Amino acid sequence: MAVSIHPSVDRGVKKGAANFAGGTLTCTCTSAPVTVTLTANTAFNHVCGCTKCWKPKGATFSMVAVVPRDKLSVTANGNKLKIVDQNAPIQRYACTGCGTHMYGRIENKNHPLYGFDFVHTELSKQDGWSAPEFAAFVSSIIESGFPPARMGEVRSRLKELGLEPYDCLSPGIMDLIATHTAKAKGTLAA
Amino acid sequence: MAVSIHPSVDRGVKKGAANFAGGTLTCTCTSAPVTVTLTANTAFNHVCGCTKCWKPKGATFSMVAVVPRDKLSVTANGNKLKIVDQNAPIQRYACTGCGTHMYGRIENKNHPLYGFDFVHTELSKQDGWSAPEFAAFVSSIIESGFPPARMGEVRSRLKELGLEPYDCLSPGIMDLIATHTAKAKGTLAA
Repeated sequence: MAVSIHPSVDRGVKKGAANFAGGTLTCTCTSAPVTVTLTANTAFNHVCGCTKCWKPKGATFSMVAVVPRDKLSVTANGNKLKIVDQNAPIQRYACTGCGTHMYGRIENKNHPLYGFDFVHTELSKQDGWSAPEFAAFVSSIIESGFPPARMGEVRSRLKELGLEPYDCLSPGIMDLIATHTAKAKGTLAA
Repeated sequence: MAVSIHPSVDRGVKKGAANFAGGTLTCTCTSAPVTVTLTANTAFNHVCGCTKCWKPKGATFSMVAVVPRDKLSVTANGNKLKIVDQNAPIQRYACTGCGTHMYGRIENKNHPLYGFDFVHTELSKQDGWSAPEFAAFVSSIIESGFPPARMGEVRSRLKELGLEPYDCLSPGIMDLIATHTAKAKGTLAA
Protein backbone atom coordinates (compact mmCIF):
# COMPACT_ATOMS: atom_id res chain seq x y z
CA MET A 1 0.00 0.00 0.00
CA ALA A 2 1.23 3.47 -0.85
CA VAL A 3 2.44 5.57 2.08
CA SER A 4 -0.26 7.96 3.29
CA ILE A 5 0.52 11.62 2.62
CA HIS A 6 -2.68 13.40 3.71
CA PRO A 7 -6.33 12.29 3.50
CA SER A 8 -7.15 15.10 1.02
CA VAL A 9 -4.63 13.87 -1.58
CA ASP A 10 -4.22 10.14 -0.93
CA ARG A 11 -6.81 9.24 -3.57
CA GLY A 12 -5.46 11.81 -6.02
CA VAL A 13 -5.27 15.59 -6.08
CA LYS A 14 -8.64 17.25 -6.77
CA LYS A 15 -8.53 20.31 -9.05
CA GLY A 16 -9.68 23.70 -7.80
CA ALA A 17 -12.36 25.79 -9.52
CA ALA A 18 -11.21 28.94 -11.33
CA ASN A 19 -14.30 30.92 -10.33
CA PHE A 20 -14.40 29.81 -6.67
CA ALA A 21 -14.62 32.87 -4.45
CA GLY A 22 -14.12 31.56 -0.92
CA GLY A 23 -16.07 29.84 1.82
CA THR A 24 -16.09 28.85 5.46
CA LEU A 25 -13.64 26.84 7.58
CA THR A 26 -15.10 25.11 10.65
CA CYS A 27 -13.24 23.51 13.55
CA THR A 28 -14.09 19.97 14.66
CA CYS A 29 -15.94 20.87 17.90
CA THR A 30 -19.42 19.31 17.93
CA SER A 31 -20.84 22.28 19.80
CA ALA A 32 -20.09 25.97 19.31
CA PRO A 33 -17.52 25.44 16.55
CA VAL A 34 -15.20 28.25 15.52
CA THR A 35 -15.80 29.40 11.96
CA VAL A 36 -13.50 31.44 9.77
CA THR A 37 -14.79 32.96 6.55
CA LEU A 38 -12.60 33.59 3.50
CA THR A 39 -13.87 35.96 0.81
CA ALA A 40 -11.36 34.76 -1.78
CA ASN A 41 -9.96 31.48 -3.03
CA THR A 42 -6.60 30.40 -1.60
CA ALA A 43 -3.23 30.34 -3.39
CA PHE A 44 0.03 28.37 -3.07
CA ASN A 45 -1.77 25.39 -1.57
CA HIS A 46 0.71 22.61 -0.75
CA VAL A 47 1.36 19.70 1.56
CA CYS A 48 3.94 20.54 4.21
CA GLY A 49 6.20 18.25 6.25
CA CYS A 50 7.21 20.80 8.87
CA THR A 51 6.66 20.08 12.55
CA LYS A 52 4.70 23.30 13.24
CA CYS A 53 1.74 23.04 10.84
CA TRP A 54 -1.44 21.42 12.12
CA LYS A 55 -2.41 18.13 10.50
CA PRO A 56 -5.22 15.63 11.01
CA LYS A 57 -4.43 12.53 13.12
CA GLY A 58 -2.42 9.95 11.23
CA ALA A 59 -1.42 12.30 8.37
CA THR A 60 2.26 12.48 7.46
CA PHE A 61 1.93 15.97 5.97
CA SER A 62 -0.28 18.95 6.66
CA MET A 63 -2.04 20.72 3.79
CA VAL A 64 -1.77 24.51 3.90
CA ALA A 65 -2.54 27.44 1.61
CA VAL A 66 -2.49 31.22 1.87
CA VAL A 67 -5.11 33.95 1.51
CA PRO A 68 -4.65 37.73 1.80
CA ARG A 69 -5.21 38.69 5.45
CA ASP A 70 -7.93 41.21 4.57
CA LYS A 71 -9.95 38.36 3.02
CA LEU A 72 -10.13 36.40 6.28
CA SER A 73 -12.40 36.98 9.25
CA VAL A 74 -13.42 34.97 12.30
CA THR A 75 -17.20 34.62 12.06
CA ALA A 76 -18.18 32.47 15.06
CA ASN A 77 -16.87 31.55 18.50
CA GLY A 78 -13.62 33.46 18.12
CA ASN A 79 -13.35 33.52 21.92
CA LYS A 80 -12.19 29.88 21.73
CA LEU A 81 -9.09 30.78 19.69
CA LYS A 82 -5.63 30.99 21.26
CA ILE A 83 -2.21 31.60 19.70
CA VAL A 84 -0.12 28.40 19.91
CA ASP A 85 3.27 30.13 20.08
CA GLN A 86 3.49 33.92 20.39
CA ASN A 87 7.15 33.84 19.38
CA ALA A 88 6.83 31.87 16.14
CA PRO A 89 7.04 33.99 12.94
CA ILE A 90 3.60 32.61 12.03
CA GLN A 91 1.14 32.97 14.92
CA ARG A 92 -1.17 29.98 14.67
CA TYR A 93 -4.67 30.48 16.08
CA ALA A 94 -5.88 27.13 17.45
CA CYS A 95 -9.29 26.20 18.85
CA THR A 96 -8.89 25.54 22.58
CA GLY A 97 -11.76 23.03 22.31
CA CYS A 98 -10.53 20.65 19.59
CA GLY A 99 -6.98 21.82 18.92
CA THR A 100 -7.56 22.55 15.23
CA HIS A 101 -5.49 25.42 13.82
CA MET A 102 -7.95 27.82 12.19
CA TYR A 103 -5.44 30.26 10.67
CA GLY A 104 -1.85 31.43 10.97
CA ARG A 105 -0.91 35.10 10.81
CA ILE A 106 2.37 36.98 10.41
CA GLU A 107 2.53 40.26 12.35
CA ASN A 108 6.11 41.22 11.40
CA LYS A 109 5.74 43.67 8.50
CA ASN A 110 9.29 42.94 7.35
CA HIS A 111 8.61 39.21 6.91
CA PRO A 112 8.71 38.23 3.21
CA LEU A 113 5.27 36.62 3.50
CA TYR A 114 3.61 39.44 5.50
CA GLY A 115 0.06 39.99 4.30
CA PHE A 116 -0.75 36.30 3.84
CA ASP A 117 -2.67 34.21 6.33
CA PHE A 118 -2.16 30.41 6.35
CA VAL A 119 -5.22 28.16 6.27
CA HIS A 120 -6.21 24.50 5.96
CA THR A 121 -9.01 24.27 3.38
CA GLU A 122 -9.83 20.68 4.36
CA LEU A 123 -11.78 22.37 7.20
CA SER A 124 -14.36 23.48 4.63
CA LYS A 125 -17.17 21.37 3.20
CA GLN A 126 -17.12 23.42 -0.01
CA ASP A 127 -15.44 22.34 -3.24
CA GLY A 128 -13.33 24.56 -5.46
CA TRP A 129 -10.49 25.57 -3.17
CA SER A 130 -7.14 25.82 -4.98
CA ALA A 131 -5.47 22.40 -5.29
CA PRO A 132 -2.16 21.56 -3.63
CA GLU A 133 0.66 22.16 -6.11
CA PHE A 134 3.81 20.83 -4.45
CA ALA A 135 5.25 19.33 -1.25
CA ALA A 136 7.34 21.54 1.07
CA PHE A 137 9.80 20.68 3.88
CA VAL A 138 9.66 16.99 2.97
CA SER A 139 12.81 15.97 4.89
CA SER A 140 11.30 17.52 8.04
CA ILE A 141 8.82 14.63 8.48
CA ILE A 142 11.83 12.76 9.90
CA GLU A 143 11.82 15.26 12.78
CA SER A 144 8.32 14.02 13.67
CA GLY A 145 9.60 10.45 13.79
CA PHE A 146 9.09 9.26 10.21
CA PRO A 147 11.65 6.52 9.39
CA PRO A 148 14.54 7.97 7.30
CA ALA A 149 14.79 4.69 5.36
CA ARG A 150 11.33 5.27 3.86
CA MET A 151 12.01 8.76 2.45
CA GLY A 152 12.54 7.42 -1.09
CA GLU A 153 9.07 5.90 -0.95
CA VAL A 154 7.57 9.21 0.24
CA ARG A 155 9.24 11.28 -2.49
CA SER A 156 8.17 8.75 -5.17
CA ARG A 157 4.57 8.85 -3.97
CA LEU A 158 4.56 12.66 -3.94
CA LYS A 159 5.85 12.72 -7.53
CA GLU A 160 3.22 10.17 -8.55
CA LEU A 161 0.55 12.51 -7.11
CA GLY A 162 2.03 15.45 -9.06
CA LEU A 163 3.25 17.08 -5.84
CA GLU A 164 6.92 17.81 -6.60
CA PRO A 165 8.87 17.31 -3.36
CA TYR A 166 11.08 20.09 -1.97
CA ASP A 167 12.97 20.21 1.33
CA CYS A 168 12.24 23.94 1.59
CA LEU A 169 9.49 25.81 -0.30
CA SER A 170 8.96 25.72 -4.08
CA PRO A 171 11.49 27.49 -6.35
CA GLY A 172 8.98 30.24 -7.20
CA ILE A 173 8.38 31.04 -3.53
CA MET A 174 12.07 30.70 -2.64
CA ASP A 175 12.87 33.21 -5.40
CA LEU A 176 10.21 35.60 -4.05
CA ILE A 177 11.71 35.37 -0.55
CA ALA A 178 15.27 35.89 -1.86
CA THR A 179 14.07 38.89 -3.88
CA HIS A 180 12.49 40.36 -0.76
CA THR A 181 15.75 39.81 1.16
CA ALA A 182 17.84 41.33 -1.66
CA LYS A 183 15.65 44.46 -1.70
CA ALA A 184 15.87 44.74 2.09
CA LYS A 185 19.69 44.44 1.90
CA GLY A 186 19.87 46.84 -1.03
CA THR A 187 21.49 44.36 -3.44
CA LEU A 188 18.43 44.71 -5.70
CA ALA A 189 16.56 47.97 -6.32
CA ALA A 190 13.40 48.09 -4.16
CA MET B 1 25.50 32.41 -24.49
CA ALA B 2 24.66 30.19 -21.54
CA VAL B 3 24.70 31.88 -18.15
CA SER B 4 28.01 31.28 -16.34
CA ILE B 5 27.69 29.08 -13.26
CA HIS B 6 31.33 28.60 -12.19
CA PRO B 7 34.53 28.33 -14.28
CA SER B 8 35.07 24.71 -13.16
CA VAL B 9 31.75 23.52 -14.61
CA ASP B 10 30.90 25.94 -17.42
CA ARG B 11 32.46 23.67 -20.05
CA GLY B 12 30.92 20.56 -18.52
CA VAL B 13 31.36 18.70 -15.25
CA LYS B 14 34.63 16.74 -15.07
CA LYS B 15 34.40 13.32 -13.40
CA GLY B 16 36.41 12.54 -10.28
CA ALA B 17 38.81 9.59 -9.98
CA ALA B 18 37.73 6.71 -7.73
CA ASN B 19 41.27 6.08 -6.47
CA PHE B 20 42.23 9.73 -5.89
CA ALA B 21 43.59 10.11 -2.37
CA GLY B 22 43.91 13.85 -1.84
CA GLY B 23 46.23 16.71 -2.69
CA THR B 24 47.11 20.31 -1.99
CA LEU B 25 45.07 23.51 -2.11
CA THR B 26 47.04 26.73 -2.69
CA CYS B 27 45.82 30.32 -2.29
CA THR B 28 46.36 32.83 -5.09
CA CYS B 29 49.17 34.86 -3.45
CA THR B 30 52.20 35.06 -5.76
CA SER B 31 54.57 34.97 -2.80
CA ALA B 32 54.36 32.88 0.36
CA PRO B 33 51.05 31.21 -0.55
CA VAL B 34 49.05 29.37 2.08
CA THR B 35 48.81 25.67 1.37
CA VAL B 36 46.33 23.18 2.82
CA THR B 37 46.89 19.46 2.39
CA LEU B 38 44.07 16.93 2.23
CA THR B 39 44.91 13.25 2.74
CA ALA B 40 41.59 12.03 1.32
CA ASN B 41 39.36 12.80 -1.63
CA THR B 42 36.43 15.13 -1.01
CA ALA B 43 32.72 14.20 -0.86
CA PHE B 44 29.38 15.99 -1.49
CA ASN B 45 31.02 18.40 -3.92
CA HIS B 46 28.44 20.89 -5.24
CA VAL B 47 27.98 24.38 -6.57
CA CYS B 48 26.45 26.70 -3.98
CA GLY B 49 24.51 29.94 -4.43
CA CYS B 50 24.72 31.14 -0.83
CA THR B 51 26.18 34.53 -0.02
CA LYS B 52 28.77 33.24 2.48
CA CYS B 53 30.83 30.79 0.39
CA TRP B 54 33.92 32.14 -1.36
CA LYS B 55 33.82 32.17 -5.14
CA PRO B 56 36.19 33.34 -7.87
CA LYS B 57 35.54 36.78 -9.40
CA GLY B 58 32.64 36.76 -11.83
CA ALA B 59 31.28 33.35 -10.78
CA THR B 60 27.58 33.11 -9.97
CA PHE B 61 28.07 30.08 -7.69
CA SER B 62 30.86 28.85 -5.47
CA MET B 63 32.01 25.22 -5.70
CA VAL B 64 32.42 23.54 -2.34
CA ALA B 65 33.01 20.01 -1.00
CA VAL B 66 33.67 18.41 2.36
CA VAL B 67 36.50 16.33 3.81
CA PRO B 68 36.79 14.82 7.31
CA ARG B 69 38.51 17.39 9.54
CA ASP B 70 41.25 14.96 10.54
CA LYS B 71 42.24 14.64 6.87
CA LEU B 72 42.99 18.37 6.53
CA SER B 73 46.09 20.24 7.66
CA VAL B 74 47.58 23.65 6.95
CA THR B 75 51.03 22.96 5.48
CA ALA B 76 52.47 26.41 4.65
CA ASN B 77 52.02 30.03 5.71
CA GLY B 78 49.17 29.33 8.10
CA ASN B 79 50.01 32.60 9.87
CA LYS B 80 48.25 34.41 6.99
CA LEU B 81 44.89 32.78 7.76
CA LYS B 82 42.11 34.59 9.59
CA ILE B 83 38.55 33.56 10.41
CA VAL B 84 36.10 35.65 8.34
CA ASP B 85 33.22 35.54 10.87
CA GLN B 86 33.76 34.00 14.31
CA ASN B 87 29.99 33.80 14.85
CA ALA B 88 29.06 31.93 11.67
CA PRO B 89 28.29 28.20 12.18
CA ILE B 90 31.05 27.48 9.64
CA GLN B 91 34.25 29.37 10.49
CA ARG B 92 35.86 30.20 7.16
CA TYR B 93 39.65 30.58 7.21
CA ALA B 94 40.61 33.17 4.57
CA CYS B 95 44.06 34.24 3.42
CA THR B 96 44.64 37.83 4.55
CA GLY B 97 46.85 38.32 1.47
CA CYS B 98 44.51 37.36 -1.38
CA GLY B 99 41.16 36.83 0.35
CA THR B 100 40.77 33.21 -0.78
CA HIS B 101 38.91 30.97 1.66
CA MET B 102 41.17 27.96 2.32
CA TYR B 103 38.78 25.92 4.47
CA GLY B 104 35.69 26.22 6.63
CA ARG B 105 35.39 24.45 9.97
CA ILE B 106 32.49 23.78 12.35
CA GLU B 107 33.44 23.88 16.05
CA ASN B 108 29.96 23.20 17.47
CA LYS B 109 29.91 19.47 18.21
CA ASN B 110 26.10 19.44 18.12
CA HIS B 111 25.98 20.77 14.54
CA PRO B 112 24.66 18.08 12.13
CA LEU B 113 27.71 18.52 9.90
CA TYR B 114 30.33 18.60 12.70
CA GLY B 115 33.42 16.68 11.64
CA PHE B 116 33.43 17.93 8.05
CA ASP B 117 35.61 20.75 6.78
CA PHE B 118 34.50 22.70 3.70
CA VAL B 119 36.96 23.19 0.84
CA HIS B 120 37.20 24.55 -2.71
CA THR B 121 39.08 21.98 -4.81
CA GLU B 122 39.50 24.41 -7.71
CA LEU B 123 42.45 25.69 -5.59
CA SER B 124 44.33 22.50 -6.45
CA LYS B 125 46.23 21.80 -9.67
CA GLN B 126 45.60 18.08 -9.29
CA ASP B 127 42.93 16.11 -11.13
CA GLY B 128 40.69 13.50 -9.56
CA TRP B 129 38.80 15.46 -6.90
CA SER B 130 35.18 14.37 -6.53
CA ALA B 131 32.95 16.02 -9.12
CA PRO B 132 30.15 18.44 -8.20
CA GLU B 133 26.88 16.52 -7.94
CA PHE B 134 24.15 19.12 -7.47
CA ALA B 135 23.46 22.82 -6.98
CA ALA B 136 22.52 24.09 -3.50
CA PHE B 137 20.86 27.34 -2.33
CA VAL B 138 20.09 28.33 -5.93
CA SER B 139 17.50 31.01 -5.08
CA SER B 140 20.08 32.70 -2.83
CA ILE B 141 22.05 34.06 -5.83
CA ILE B 142 19.30 36.69 -5.98
CA GLU B 143 20.55 37.96 -2.60
CA SER B 144 23.90 38.71 -4.27
CA GLY B 145 22.10 40.78 -6.92
CA PHE B 146 21.36 38.19 -9.62
CA PRO B 147 18.24 39.25 -11.60
CA PRO B 148 15.18 37.24 -10.43
CA ALA B 149 13.82 37.20 -14.00
CA ARG B 150 16.77 35.05 -15.11
CA MET B 151 16.33 32.26 -12.54
CA GLY B 152 14.58 29.98 -15.04
CA GLU B 153 17.63 30.23 -17.29
CA VAL B 154 19.96 29.39 -14.36
CA ARG B 155 17.96 26.33 -13.28
CA SER B 156 17.78 25.08 -16.90
CA ARG B 157 21.53 25.46 -17.33
CA LEU B 158 22.19 23.62 -14.04
CA LYS B 159 19.97 20.73 -15.17
CA GLU B 160 21.72 20.66 -18.54
CA LEU B 161 25.05 20.30 -16.68
CA GLY B 162 23.62 17.46 -14.57
CA LEU B 163 23.65 19.63 -11.43
CA GLU B 164 20.10 19.25 -10.10
CA PRO B 165 19.10 22.62 -8.58
CA TYR B 166 17.89 22.84 -4.98
CA ASP B 167 17.05 25.92 -2.92
CA CYS B 168 18.46 24.23 0.18
CA LEU B 169 20.84 21.22 0.20
CA SER B 170 20.26 17.92 -1.65
CA PRO B 171 17.51 15.56 -0.39
CA GLY B 172 20.11 13.07 0.90
CA ILE B 173 21.87 15.72 2.99
CA MET B 174 18.58 17.29 4.13
CA ASP B 175 17.46 13.84 5.33
CA LEU B 176 20.76 13.38 7.20
CA ILE B 177 20.31 16.74 8.92
CA ALA B 178 16.66 15.98 9.83
CA THR B 179 17.73 12.59 11.19
CA HIS B 180 20.36 14.29 13.34
CA THR B 181 17.73 16.75 14.62
CA ALA B 182 15.22 13.96 15.31
CA LYS B 183 17.80 12.04 17.35
CA ALA B 184 18.73 15.18 19.27
CA LYS B 185 15.02 15.81 20.01
CA GLY B 186 14.41 12.16 20.88
CA THR B 187 11.77 11.59 18.17
CA LEU B 188 14.08 8.95 16.65
CA ALA B 189 16.22 6.52 18.65
CA ALA B 190 19.83 7.76 18.76
